[in-house]
Amino acid sequence: MGKRAVVLLSGGLDSAVTLAVARSSGYRCRTLSFDYGQRHRAELACAENVSAVLGAAEHHVVSLDADSFRGSALTDDIPVPKGREVDSGSAGIPVTYVPARNLVFLSLGVAHAEIIDAEAVFIGVNALDYSGYPDCRADFIEAFQNAAVLGTRRGREGRPCRIETPLIDLTKAEIIRRGDGLGVDFSLTSSCYDPDAQGRACGSCDSCQLRRAGFESAGVADPTVYRSEGVTL
Amino acid sequence: MGKRAVVLLSGGLDSAVTLAVARSSGYRCRTLSFDYGQRHRAELACAENVSAVLGAAEHHVVSLDADSFRGSALTDDIPVPKGREVDSGSAGIPVTYVPARNLVFLSLGVAHAEIIDAEAVFIGVNALDYSGYPDCRADFIEAFQNAAVLGTRRGREGRPCRIETPLIDLTKAEIIRRGDGLGVDFSLTSSCYDPDAQGRACGSCDSCQLRRAGFESAGVADPTVYRSEGVTL
Repeated sequence: MGKRAVVLLSGGLDSAVTLAVARSSGYRCRTLSFDYGQRHRAELACAENVSAVLGAAEHHVVSLDADSFRGSALTDDIPVPKGREVDSGSAGIPVTYVPARNLVFLSLGVAHAEIIDAEAVFIGVNALDYSGYPDCRADFIEAFQNAAVLGTRRGREGRPCRIETPLIDLTKAEIIRRGDGLGVDFSLTSSCYDPDAQGRACGSCDSCQLRRAGFESAGVADPTVYRSEGVTL
Repeated sequence: MGKRAVVLLSGGLDSAVTLAVARSSGYRCRTLSFDYGQRHRAELACAENVSAVLGAAEHHVVSLDADSFRGSALTDDIPVPKGREVDSGSAGIPVTYVPARNLVFLSLGVAHAEIIDAEAVFIGVNALDYSGYPDCRADFIEAFQNAAVLGTRRGREGRPCRIETPLIDLTKAEIIRRGDGLGVDFSLTSSCYDPDAQGRACGSCDSCQLRRAGFESAGVADPTVYRSEGVTL
């Protein structure tokens, strides 16, 4: 059967590159996306496309009650910040932080890994640009890995599922170059926290700003379709 | 507002006693139950009753895709073992182990705790009778607690949500006595892994056996309604 992995796939740029890394490392991949009532649900269609194009063997969408993820600008009627300076080194937690999201997503990833006997769960967290999110940092991932070892059959049997974070120490530009080298079609991905009904990116939320600056810095053409309002391209 | 807690409530005996402990400690409680396609879904109606009778402020049922919990006798077409000697000290993992279940449930509990700013998540795990389940042991709970501290806003702010396991070192008889002392009406609870359509317990699965022996040993009357087949009362 070869080696198997579960890959958490949001439909964004980082997780697409993560899937490409897993595939290039020879894993048969089950991709998992999560429908949790996020305002940027356009990413779910992107995830399905990315999964197919990058050759994942299976794609699952896990529906989660929106009630479990309240209190974030990504899930509630809290404005998504626009046009602000993205302070990636801040200790403050952004309003776009979704409570315990990666804790829940990784746990479900590990559940699926137990089911298909996968040896790894890949997640595209990145500590440089998202250091304000507590659940994107290396110390959290390490602690979660320990819990997953102790809480699962594979772990107790001495062959624990590893949590793989191939992007954790990369800049956005490095991630884009990595994906470009692996043939990722970035036009299939969606990073915007607040896309319009056609899925076009706002260009000014934190996530759009990081993405645009990343393409510029990487010297890779940015295929993103931005809607016009308030955006200077 | 007073202190708040999230209590994971299955509808079984242990989690009912756990809720009673949390209530008696003065917590305003949000109870969480999980619908994950379990064959013993009768427990969900029990959970709703138990939550109301024991005075929880809110009750939520979180629906989870059954796909995320395959491969267990509790979720798939794998027979629930009956009438076997319950070997609670075995290192083997029972066929009724549901992959990463408590990891997922605790993660969602922590997500809800972040939303309502609760200082504790209560779970009725018990290491004595369920040592075969990797996710019922103290070392797993401790590792999970560490991950939850690092992965959440409360944790990063230095006021982490605690994972409370008031039953972890108790025998089933001690749990029953504890609940009896707190006025828990055990007739509202359901422990059977394989109840019939009327919700009546089989009397012979591991969980029924532990429950029946617990009542006997505690000297507390067992209000459970067992169906007749194959059961010697």
